[in-house]
Amino acid sequence: MDTKIFSSSESQSQRHNVPYIHKIGIPPKQDLLKEFKTTVKETLFSDDPLRPFKDQPKSRKLLLGLQAIFPIFDWGRSYNLKKFRGDLISGLTIASLCIPQDIGYSRLAFLPPQYGLYSSFVPPLIYAFMGSSRDIAIGPVAVVSLLLGTLLQNEFDPVHNADEYRRLAFTATFFAGITQATLGVLRLGFLIDFLSHAAVVGFMGGAAITIALQQLKGFLGIKHFTKKTDIVSVMKSVFGSIDHGVSFLSSHNYTLYEAYMIYFFLQMLQWNWQTIVIGASFLFFLLSAKYLAKKNKKLFWVSAIAPLISVILSTLFVYISHADKEGVAIVKHIEKGINPSSVNEIYFSGENLLKGFRIGIVAGMIALTEAVAIGRTFASMKDYQVDGNKEMIALGTMNVVGSMTSCYVATGSFSRSAVNYMAGCQTAVSNIVMSLVVFLTLKFLTPLFQYTPNAILSSIIISAVIGLIDYDAAILIWKIDKFDFVACMGAFFGVVFASVEIGLLIAVSISFAKILLQVTRPRTAILGRIPMTSVYRNIQQYPEATKVHGVLIVRVDSAIYFSNSNYTKERILRWLTEEEDHLRTTYQPRIQFLIIEMSPVTDIDTSGIHAFEELYRSLVKRDVQLVLANPGRLVIDKLYASGFPDLIGENKIFLTVADAVLTCSPKIVHEV
Amino acid sequence: MDTKIFSSSESQSQRHNVPYIHKIGIPPKQDLLKEFKTTVKETLFSDDPLRPFKDQPKSRKLLLGLQAIFPIFDWGRSYNLKKFRGDLISGLTIASLCIPQDIGYSRLAFLPPQYGLYSSFVPPLIYAFMGSSRDIAIGPVAVVSLLLGTLLQNEFDPVHNADEYRRLAFTATFFAGITQATLGVLRLGFLIDFLSHAAVVGFMGGAAITIALQQLKGFLGIKHFTKKTDIVSVMKSVFGSIDHGVSFLSSHNYTLYEAYMIYFFLQMLQWNWQTIVIGASFLFFLLSAKYLAKKNKKLFWVSAIAPLISVILSTLFVYISHADKEGVAIVKHIEKGINPSSVNEIYFSGENLLKGFRIGIVAGMIALTEAVAIGRTFASMKDYQVDGNKEMIALGTMNVVGSMTSCYVATGSFSRSAVNYMAGCQTAVSNIVMSLVVFLTLKFLTPLFQYTPNAILSSIIISAVIGLIDYDAAILIWKIDKFDFVACMGAFFGVVFASVEIGLLIAVSISFAKILLQVTRPRTAILGRIPMTSVYRNIQQYPEATKVHGVLIVRVDSAIYFSNSNYTKERILRWLTEEEDHLRTTYQPRIQFLIIEMSPVTDIDTSGIHAFEELYRSLVKRDVQLVLANPGRLVIDKLYASGFPDLIGENKIFLTVADAVLTCSPKIVHEV
Repeated sequence: MDTKIFSSSESQSQRHNVPYIHKIGIPPKQDLLKEFKTTVKETLFSDDPLRPFKDQPKSRKLLLGLQAIFPIFDWGRSYNLKKFRGDLISGLTIASLCIPQDIGYSRLAFLPPQYGLYSSFVPPLIYAFMGSSRDIAIGPVAVVSLLLGTLLQNEFDPVHNADEYRRLAFTATFFAGITQATLGVLRLGFLIDFLSHAAVVGFMGGAAITIALQQLKGFLGIKHFTKKTDIVSVMKSVFGSIDHGVSFLSSHNYTLYEAYMIYFFLQMLQWNWQTIVIGASFLFFLLSAKYLAKKNKKLFWVSAIAPLISVILSTLFVYISHADKEGVAIVKHIEKGINPSSVNEIYFSGENLLKGFRIGIVAGMIALTEAVAIGRTFASMKDYQVDGNKEMIALGTMNVVGSMTSCYVATGSFSRSAVNYMAGCQTAVSNIVMSLVVFLTLKFLTPLFQYTPNAILSSIIISAVIGLIDYDAAILIWKIDKFDFVACMGAFFGVVFASVEIGLLIAVSISFAKILLQVTRPRTAILGRIPMTSVYRNIQQYPEATKVHGVLIVRVDSAIYFSNSNYTKERILRWLTEEEDHLRTTYQPRIQFLIIEMSPVTDIDTSGIHAFEELYRSLVKRDVQLVLANPGRLVIDKLYASGFPDLIGENKIFLTVADAVLTCSPKIVHEV
Repeated sequence: MDTKIFSSSESQSQRHNVPYIHKIGIPPKQDLLKEFKTTVKETLFSDDPLRPFKDQPKSRKLLLGLQAIFPIFDWGRSYNLKKFRGDLISGLTIASLCIPQDIGYSRLAFLPPQYGLYSSFVPPLIYAFMGSSRDIAIGPVAVVSLLLGTLLQNEFDPVHNADEYRRLAFTATFFAGITQATLGVLRLGFLIDFLSHAAVVGFMGGAAITIALQQLKGFLGIKHFTKKTDIVSVMKSVFGSIDHGVSFLSSHNYTLYEAYMIYFFLQMLQWNWQTIVIGASFLFFLLSAKYLAKKNKKLFWVSAIAPLISVILSTLFVYISHADKEGVAIVKHIEKGINPSSVNEIYFSGENLLKGFRIGIVAGMIALTEAVAIGRTFASMKDYQVDGNKEMIALGTMNVVGSMTSCYVATGSFSRSAVNYMAGCQTAVSNIVMSLVVFLTLKFLTPLFQYTPNAILSSIIISAVIGLIDYDAAILIWKIDKFDFVACMGAFFGVVFASVEIGLLIAVSISFAKILLQVTRPRTAILGRIPMTSVYRNIQQYPEATKVHGVLIVRVDSAIYFSNSNYTKERILRWLTEEEDHLRTTYQPRIQFLIIEMSPVTDIDTSGIHAFEELYRSLVKRDVQLVLANPGRLVIDKLYASGFPDLIGENKIFLTVADAVLTCSPKIVHEV
């Protein structure tokens, strides 16, 4: 087998016309075990987790192992008072933000308010010991609460089957944790990368709108509200069956316009005015605080403590004015005391186990996506590494323990993590501080919240989720990649018009479709020589590039696999046919060499080699010679293994397109 | 926005030290509609089917349209007597081969023997008018018959519910045809490319072994035979519960060896010796004929007519010797007359519709894969084009019509198509000839087959399917691509040890896993300069390539998408860390420039651009400058749309790695 590839340093060959032959060292035999090990390593251990353990004494290895599982033993050794000051301030700030949010979010999950607070006590503590992100703020979050509520509600009614509902919630939380930890242990963390950035942007935006719409119940004081989350059902709940009423009124000699107006006002009478006034004024306050914080980054604390201030003021107001007697709905009762055990509440058998398992997987994956996205964002801002797989084990453990201590699924919160970062947090100690404040609240302060109006919680939720609607990201996605934008909008409209699950399904499907499209229809390009260089580039990208007479140079922009091998072969033949038609009509010499630039062809499989063999046979029939330029290491290994170089003839594989052209050009037969 | 990319023709810059600035024409604005149209065209209309219609008068368009649907009107116009001679001989040859095969294959599908013959009468006729392959031989095939039998049997018992079973078979055939035609009409033919060549080789081999094992029933004359197709169940049927008997005997003072032997012989007594002798001698005859044909290609007709000769001889033998009275099972009865209508037998409503639909999709896809593979193979051997989508419409129509005329799923047969090709067929007329012979057989000759022993049919099937086991292909796959080999073996063992469906599922799953792995973990490489050239290549492939001081050149070998953007970023940073560690320990100057060779990066999405931004920020912290070389057209569009070139600074994008190195090298600050 000839293992030489011919390369001519261009300047040399131009001057002396003697091609410089460059040898290529094909690895004599594919070392199968090594190849396999490399693949496994890059797939599962791409971060090389055992690197620090190399060449260390045993005791040191033990310490490193402990530090790997509990990073607190690593960064804790260099912890000091200065760092603590930052953590204390940020911890107190996020605590003030999380308490009202927790109470509100637990309502999204159709759970009593104390469960939100429980979930801000135990999970952050566990995370502080095991997590590797320094900025993330752990606790219940809006999107996961909504998702969990929607999914659980399909199985049990949260009002009439409150016990089963709660037990299923813990079961789902348990399996969410197991899912997360398992992905981490099996090092399958990369699976969450399959939810693309664009899909997440759309999904979050849609979820934010859905959550905000759900708040109309508390905000307008409506008693009978739909359980569905899509915009059509919600609007029907808000405005009642207006069409029906209008057609009744317009049949009684009112004009259509009058009928609409009358019915609209009648409908609005069902709303509770006091509730709306309280809700609207505090929403205005919260949004103003947010706006202020956005204008002046130093005033971020205004928006951070605004929710707590709103709660205190509105609670006082209701307590003094007895507005609850006027129909303003209030929280009424929050259980006092810290998390009770819920080990016995988890369904470990029967049909409910399966239900909880299914819901847990979905909720766990979404929670993971959110937490990892937050962790990565802040890690890249401060330039430290977050180990995805380790992070998953931490999040998983925290949710498993949480499910046994009356918590529901907790994860990293976008809004609170941002506040945590801006308040100057240094380490996960800020989570411990927050956790302790929540602990004190549960122990002593819950009775104070009983007069808190639900409308305030709705306002707080609305002002929090508004930040999840990321217009700028959506506009940027539109600018950069239209297909991504379709995924983004698919997820968005799926969530808004159908349901959270359907939006998620659409997002994942479109993301997969994109991958499949990429591997099914790779791009190909015709190359030309850029004037005064030996560089060959796509003539569509560089219109000044010129074709070489009698030679067609095609670049294939993808690995050639079974999924695209036939297409690639047929596309190349179609380029040739089109070029030949063009040359014929313009009376130019025909194509005698087809050079395939293989640089972007990173891999080839048996189907791909079959396609190349078929291509070669077709070219022989057309009296065109096949030449390859710059096949990569894997490709050349496989070409030689299949005997393809012997088939197409000696010296038909070159190091660069320029070399191939230099060797082919002189051989072109000039015909008339 | 600066839209210039700097390129220096190397020789120029070396001589004058003035870089030649090469402008790049970025399309000023992405034409969205055009981009979308191109994508749709390449995905669904990659073969440009409307090209011949362009600029033609209306009447010509009509004719072309007719010819597009019925290619017979195209090639029929140049049909002549010479071609007919070839078609007549090959048609008669495949007819002699197909009649015994049809009777045998219908037994695999648990249908009475005449249904196999029916399926060789109507479908080939329809195909001859609509199909574009010249060499394919249409009719029932072993693998699809087995698959259909296995799937149908899960729903109805073919003996006790013979009517429902048959009706479901027609329903499945109907929907198999609908599936095939729909894929063709919607131009989704590329979907079958997702079953990789390797998976098909494994699946076919496994199916061949399974089919051969099933023949042991007829071959050994066993009455009670398992309905499962896996090797363990079949072996138990053949040898009975030997272990049970052995333990009984060995507890009666026989040694274990004696016990095994005794029980084995007792078990063999259940076999029918006469059947085995007839079957074995004719199997020997058939295999010898096959061997002869393989040694001398001109004697292919010996193996082609051997089955019919076997049938005639053995039928005569049984008729004369009355061997059927000795327990030799015979065909007994074949319905005389041509296909009755079965329109009213198809389930068009109810639960059975759904069952038939599901089975039809699977059977239709497998039948399609086989037919398209055959069509492509012979088309490439004779160098003509087979239009995949048109072919699917033809196959679909033929099965829909077939389902209404008592046929079950027909497709292209590997063995008969090969014989057809070697017998010198010219056009699809050979299928018409075969169809007419089958018609005459149905009309007049079926009573002659009633004394045909089942053992002969089993021998014929075994000798036919042995050709489906393609050792050479499997060995070649092992040599070329280990991952493909895993898919191949997965399909093979799945079929042999579990069932046809499970084998299929394994094959498809492994094929998909391969695609996902490719897009999740792209390869990266460190580049070095090949001595005496300006070419930069992977230093692992070209060990003589040398690194440039202070510069690290990394090539990313894949489009950068959400599924791999994080990995890619982290892998590049890991290359940098490793290189820096190495340089530090050897007291060499540190890396100051990171050049990313983007040639193989065919596309990038929003997640990919985010990853690049994060990479840039990490590099800034490490005081390393980021430089890009040769981004493709799509990539450069998206980079500019996102403002990335402004972020990393002017003039950091080059046409080639050589240009980038030339510009960076002089700027390297020499530190101590």
